[in-house]
Amino acid sequence: MNFASDNTAPVEPAILDALAQASRGYARGYGNDDWTKAAERRLCEIFERKVAAFLVPTGTAANALALAQVSPPWGAILCHNQSHILTDECGAPEFFGHGVKLVGLSGEGGKITADGLHAALAGYGGHSPHQVIPSALSITQATEAGTIYRTNEIAALADIARQRSLAVHMDGARFANALVRLNATPAEMTWRSGIDVLSFGATKGGALAAEAVIFFDPGAAASFGERRKRGGHLLSKHRFIAAQFLAYLADDRWLALARHANAMADNLAQRLTAIGLPPVWPVEANLVFVVLSRALDARLRVAGASYYVRSSDGLDISAENVLVRLVTSFATTEEDIERFAKLCESFEERPFERRPRLAPI
Amino acid sequence: MNFASDNTAPVEPAILDALAQASRGYARGYGNDDWTKAAERRLCEIFERKVAAFLVPTGTAANALALAQVSPPWGAILCHNQSHILTDECGAPEFFGHGVKLVGLSGEGGKITADGLHAALAGYGGHSPHQVIPSALSITQATEAGTIYRTNEIAALADIARQRSLAVHMDGARFANALVRLNATPAEMTWRSGIDVLSFGATKGGALAAEAVIFFDPGAAASFGERRKRGGHLLSKHRFIAAQFLAYLADDRWLALARHANAMADNLAQRLTAIGLPPVWPVEANLVFVVLSRALDARLRVAGASYYVRSSDGLDISAENVLVRLVTSFATTEEDIERFAKLCESFEERPFERRPRLAPI
Amino acid sequence: MNFASDNTAPVEPAILDALAQASRGYARGYGNDDWTKAAERRLCEIFERKVAAFLVPTGTAANALALAQVSPPWGAILCHNQSHILTDECGAPEFFGHGVKLVGLSGEGGKITADGLHAALAGYGGHSPHQVIPSALSITQATEAGTIYRTNEIAALADIARQRSLAVHMDGARFANALVRLNATPAEMTWRSGIDVLSFGATKGGALAAEAVIFFDPGAAASFGERRKRGGHLLSKHRFIAAQFLAYLADDRWLALARHANAMADNLAQRLTAIGLPPVWPVEANLVFVVLSRALDARLRVAGASYYVRSSDGLDISAENVLVRLVTSFATTEEDIERFAKLCESFEERPFERRPRLAPI
Amino acid sequence: MNFASDNTAPVEPAILDALAQASRGYARGYGNDDWTKAAERRLCEIFERKVAAFLVPTGTAANALALAQVSPPWGAILCHNQSHILTDECGAPEFFGHGVKLVGLSGEGGKITADGLHAALAGYGGHSPHQVIPSALSITQATEAGTIYRTNEIAALADIARQRSLAVHMDGARFANALVRLNATPAEMTWRSGIDVLSFGATKGGALAAEAVIFFDPGAAASFGERRKRGGHLLSKHRFIAAQFLAYLADDRWLALARHANAMADNLAQRLTAIGLPPVWPVEANLVFVVLSRALDARLRVAGASYYVRSSDGLDISAENVLVRLVTSFATTEEDIERFAKLCESFEERPFERRPRLAPI
Repeated sequence: MNFASDNTAPVEPAILDALAQASRGYARGYGNDDWTKAAERRLCEIFERKVAAFLVPTGTAANALALAQVSPPWGAILCHNQSHILTDECGAPEFFGHGVKLVGLSGEGGKITADGLHAALAGYGGHSPHQVIPSALSITQATEAGTIYRTNEIAALADIARQRSLAVHMDGARFANALVRLNATPAEMTWRSGIDVLSFGATKGGALAAEAVIFFDPGAAASFGERRKRGGHLLSKHRFIAAQFLAYLADDRWLALARHANAMADNLAQRLTAIGLPPVWPVEANLVFVVLSRALDARLRVAGASYYVRSSDGLDISAENVLVRLVTSFATTEEDIERFAKLCESFEERPFERRPRLAPI
Repeated sequence: MNFASDNTAPVEPAILDALAQASRGYARGYGNDDWTKAAERRLCEIFERKVAAFLVPTGTAANALALAQVSPPWGAILCHNQSHILTDECGAPEFFGHGVKLVGLSGEGGKITADGLHAALAGYGGHSPHQVIPSALSITQATEAGTIYRTNEIAALADIARQRSLAVHMDGARFANALVRLNATPAEMTWRSGIDVLSFGATKGGALAAEAVIFFDPGAAASFGERRKRGGHLLSKHRFIAAQFLAYLADDRWLALARHANAMADNLAQRLTAIGLPPVWPVEANLVFVVLSRALDARLRVAGASYYVRSSDGLDISAENVLVRLVTSFATTEEDIERFAKLCESFEERPFERRPRLAPI
Repeated sequence: MNFASDNTAPVEPAILDALAQASRGYARGYGNDDWTKAAERRLCEIFERKVAAFLVPTGTAANALALAQVSPPWGAILCHNQSHILTDECGAPEFFGHGVKLVGLSGEGGKITADGLHAALAGYGGHSPHQVIPSALSITQATEAGTIYRTNEIAALADIARQRSLAVHMDGARFANALVRLNATPAEMTWRSGIDVLSFGATKGGALAAEAVIFFDPGAAASFGERRKRGGHLLSKHRFIAAQFLAYLADDRWLALARHANAMADNLAQRLTAIGLPPVWPVEANLVFVVLSRALDARLRVAGASYYVRSSDGLDISAENVLVRLVTSFATTEEDIERFAKLCESFEERPFERRPRLAPI
Repeated sequence: MNFASDNTAPVEPAILDALAQASRGYARGYGNDDWTKAAERRLCEIFERKVAAFLVPTGTAANALALAQVSPPWGAILCHNQSHILTDECGAPEFFGHGVKLVGLSGEGGKITADGLHAALAGYGGHSPHQVIPSALSITQATEAGTIYRTNEIAALADIARQRSLAVHMDGARFANALVRLNATPAEMTWRSGIDVLSFGATKGGALAAEAVIFFDPGAAASFGERRKRGGHLLSKHRFIAAQFLAYLADDRWLALARHANAMADNLAQRLTAIGLPPVWPVEANLVFVVLSRALDARLRVAGASYYVRSSDGLDISAENVLVRLVTSFATTEEDIERFAKLCESFEERPFERRPRLAPI
């Protein structure tokens, strides 16, 4: 019953096997190898255009490097106030961005709205050179709340951003989870909707440590190789990061893995809803947020369940309750869910607070 | 005949197997797992004291993070003018060090001398606040020229550094190669000789991507966790970097792998010397530098040999010749060497320039 | 009728004269002169203790350098969400702080409250190394809204900060304006109330360009000389910045100048209140915020009045009205105020919105 | 007898008077005033083209901001190994340049040669992304050794730089001293010879604290206003820095002041040569370097002479002697020189080392 994060899962077996397959003979270092070239080609195929792709070992690196590329130090990066880049990367974007400023926007369910973005941008302009200049919009897909932006929502936000000359970044740590839910193509969910640069995550989806920064306009990636190297994020035995991506993207494996993780989240949400514990936000990816009583929370932990309590700032939750985040992954089994749900069900007192679900997709 | 670098080799099989073994079940992310704890314990054993150890995926990250920890932005880091941190990391130390300055010292065979260090330090002091302040000495062991510092040489340099309050860093990308040659313990080659912080490399020795920053005084590592995270170098599925280290360090595997690599370098050097191509610098680790005629160089490449030409700045080499670097690794075979040597031997013209070997260890 | 800012005023004549007096003969550069030493002594006298004082030409430099000294790059600096360091310095604190994060707190009238600070701090901790670490509290005295912190309010905030090991910084761009209102000594308003480092402004008070960073614990100023130099803020003909401070601080000139500016603000507030335009926030320094109809605003500008419209975010002001900031200075005359008030008075329509004044001091 | 630096001199009276003249009435802050606009126009006149000019209070700020504008963080700035930016600014270029690397080139008399530049550039290229990329050339005019580049020398260096896409920066802390010696126009000595950006100093020439960054292609100055602000170098009472420039540049005052300083240096050099103490490098600006015996040095200091001993690295000077730098300024008098020369003359023992003078202009 490990729902702590999708990064507590192991490496998906086919990806692990790909590492072993790649570990034969010599290969040039630092990305000058056949695996890397193949991964780059594969990414171009998947996104249906020439892209500039750079592989890095962590999502924090992908995000921070991508944002630094599209924002000057005196820029402001607008993002959700619960976004990973703002709350969980210990200032990596500010470090790589040489002191760039992140501006957190509120928005239900982890999503920035067009109105919210308009309002935030209205606060900038006409105060040069005293004020920082909005330089990028970063959205997370799927969001940290487990919701997803529809392609028209992405396009609307990107349009607003473009009118103010902001670059648009997508933190796609759970890109596949969003994609398989949306019935959209990777191209539609990104550059066709106005995304300029994507942090494309494979680690949470089943890889060991493999993320890619994708520039949809390769011309926007000038000197990014130096930027990555200088950040210490160019692996010497680079074939092994490329091999992970190749296996992840082969045979639609990435989509299958994400579908499984999402299906497990759906199961979990349905089971919990049935016993009076509906999710706080729509379950659109592989994250389920529910309000539990502290008593139930304690009992679940004793029984071996693993998950995190999240800040309930802005939610109307009483002191007896906690907001918890349950994350499923490619490795989650129906047994895990069944066991967890049963434990909840068997618990007599079930004080919780309901929130209306948002409209389904 | 791949002598391009020790990072063109694959992953050593036992280390690869350890990844598969570690990929079972769930584990907490970000280093809060059993493998990481075990790796930390093992590093303490190996260094015979309590150390603070932080695993990162690249050597550039290890070096740059370590140096930033021990040097203020207005510091000067003294290093050899051929050191990897100065010439091959695209300014990573300056980036992580927030604009710290690297000062390159000359020295035969990649080694800084006590006299050279004294002379460099004499140029600093008494000009505050206009001049940067020497804050750290960084030495590479084994050096970029394939030579090694004896423990008394390390101690002498560290003594000079300490008198000026400089921290002492060792870039140990090829730590094991130096260690097995010296007949010294890890403790003797580091903290007992005055090293404060070590970049301990496993990647070149056989790992996939595993390096450690080791602080011999754990108190000197305050907030290093934040520094690493902020640099994007904290892996989420951290057990897999720890598992590499555990396998590398188990059963003296790391020492055996390094002995093999060194022995291959010795073989290569002997074979080349016998045919009139003696190494330029003493072969004390797994690097062999030789001067080849451009004609031989061309022929070797046609025959499939892979290696790099290096700058011969400061060496008296004629225009018809080139300085080449041949690197052996755990994966190098006697057949590789035999074939390479035979190719050289069979080449009629062998114009080269000899340089006296330095004294043997 | 120039109420745009206190920096639109000229140089106060005695300070200007001091520049001429100092411009005789030679003096060592970079602060090794008698004026600088005298200014340092004078600052020690004024603050009734040994302080470490560093003179710089701008308030942005003073703030950014001071904050960088007391906060690591992975720190968070808590400040009011309308503070100058957050909104008007184009990211200078982030630049000098190597990517430090500023966190804006809300609070009526530009003031952080103890409750607000507690709440903000409650959001940090227990999430290392993913989250930045609160490292400093910065308060502005007088605030950007023209209000002032009482010494017990400062002490209460500083106590909370100290419990979490935060350094406490005061942006004293209008230090004198606050001081003369409070009937407190400089020591009481700073270190005796828990302030660790002060940006002490003289420019807005009448100097040409003179600010000081004051560390109340000189030991906390280690290497600050290098930090200032590296920021380009060590003037070569340093005697001229010191001479400004000496003249500013001589004969209680700084207090007299501030009393005049405050008195002018009081006059202005009284006159405006009398005609139905009460200040939005208590007038406790030299800033008067009032809500004007757009019609009146236009008329005043035609008549030659100069001032800035400020964001009315968080205030309930209708679209027909604007929030304006009127700043008085040592140079403001009663005639200016009389003329401005008369213009307002003569204006037929006076639609405005009242807000209750806060309790007087 | 103060020959310590040209910044030990006071403010030239006409410039001081201009400050008083400017201190009348109100003016908009931060450069939105008439003095600033007039100074910008005047600079365009002087340089015979539309330029983008930004005034800052220190030369270190001018240099560091200018270089950061034209160099990415992974760039290398090539400069003389005795240049002020490399040795005397405590790493300001690295700080403002976000970790940019400075590479020092040797060259007789403080001057980079075409051959030296070619050789340095030959060491870069073909090693991407591991190596930093040469991004700018910085030359000092007049040099730190008191010599000057002829316009054809500047053009030759700039040509080489341009072939490698380097920007060309001139540190003109003593711009006027060089200019009046060369019989060239400001345009000829800068953009017509290939200079892209100039740090134009007035402080050493007689101002209180006034330097300008001049971009000869205004398009290259995009966002420089933000960069300056963020560095804390935008003065609020900006008219006073502009007023200094206006007075400095009015009526060819700057040229007259520089001619005086140079003439004093010539006098000094002639007097010293006559008594057997010829300058080490050609005296082409207002700096005279001579070798004195330690005995004479001691005697001069006792008699009240003030000057600095400089590093004699690379010069063949015996241990009994020291290399000293004598700086003249607008304030230097013939009496100062006469007295100094007499003191030298009266000293019995005069052991010194001669060096041939370079060819005169």
